[in-house]
Amino acid sequence: MHCSLARTLEVVGDWWTPLILRDIYLGVDRFADLAQDLGLSRNLLTERLGGLVNDGIVRRERYQERPPRDRYALTEAGQELIPILVALTAWGDRWQTPEGGPPIRFQHGDHNAAPIVACGVCGNHITSENLTARPGPGGQRAPGTMLIAERLATA
Amino acid sequence: MHCSLARTLEVVGDWWTPLILRDIYLGVDRFADLAQDLGLSRNLLTERLGGLVNDGIVRRERYQERPPRDRYALTEAGQELIPILVALTAWGDRWQTPEGGPPIRFQHGDHNAAPIVACGVCGNHITSENLTARPGPGGQRAPGTMLIAERLATA
Repeated sequence: MHCSLARTLEVVGDWWTPLILRDIYLGVDRFADLAQDLGLSRNLLTERLGGLVNDGIVRRERYQERPPRDRYALTEAGQELIPILVALTAWGDRWQTPEGGPPIRFQHGDHNAAPIVACGVCGNHITSENLTARPGPGGQRAPGTMLIAERLATA
Repeated sequence: MHCSLARTLEVVGDWWTPLILRDIYLGVDRFADLAQDLGLSRNLLTERLGGLVNDGIVRRERYQERPPRDRYALTEAGQELIPILVALTAWGDRWQTPEGGPPIRFQHGDHNAAPIVACGVCGNHITSENLTARPGPGGQRAPGTMLIAERLATA
């Protein structure tokens, strides 16, 4: 699909993938621990981790030679997904709250993290109201942006 | 699953859902237009839109009575997902760039939007390095946070 969001979802859009990245980030980085924390079958976890390694989001590191033992770590691309996952988690805390409240609280320095999406240019809050979409250099009439590319161009 | 991220993914984690929300936000809000823009079958689109309406993320509005015609609109919960999807899109522009560059550029006021995740309390950039996870009030030893709840409690 000719769309950055669609391509991102191809890489991280699987239901399990963001949970795997969150766990690795929090230090649950061994295969058996990931399987146990998420209640995920070994086959499925092997497949998902392999995909994340191929896509350059996770790398596998040997931390012990005898017997051989590996752990998983986030690449730079993977690390850059974490704040976005934390923002998604905050949305879930607000709109799909688990019984009893949020299971995890993120601290930012000495205070609770209150993730918002801000603009790196002006520093202000980005909301659905203060954004406008414009055609980009790669716009095409292709699935994923079949109508959008055209509509933005004539808007 | 006992985890705000897992619950969010249950609602919006389907591969198609974020694309549907993005399209509705950009004004591609009629059933036939959504199907055409995304190259999605009518059955699958009906099912996904029904799920989004049930989950309170999208609402259906009648804009014409004869013949009856509906359009879809984002609820407040849906609108709050848009900046996060824009941040995910920016990640994709950077790490999974489509040929020719980004198909869509988001403007924030008079400049290009450069979405970052910031902290609503202190205003600073949230990164994977300056966050710490702490157990929240709803922490449980349950799938999704089987090991994490315990590890955070003893950290």
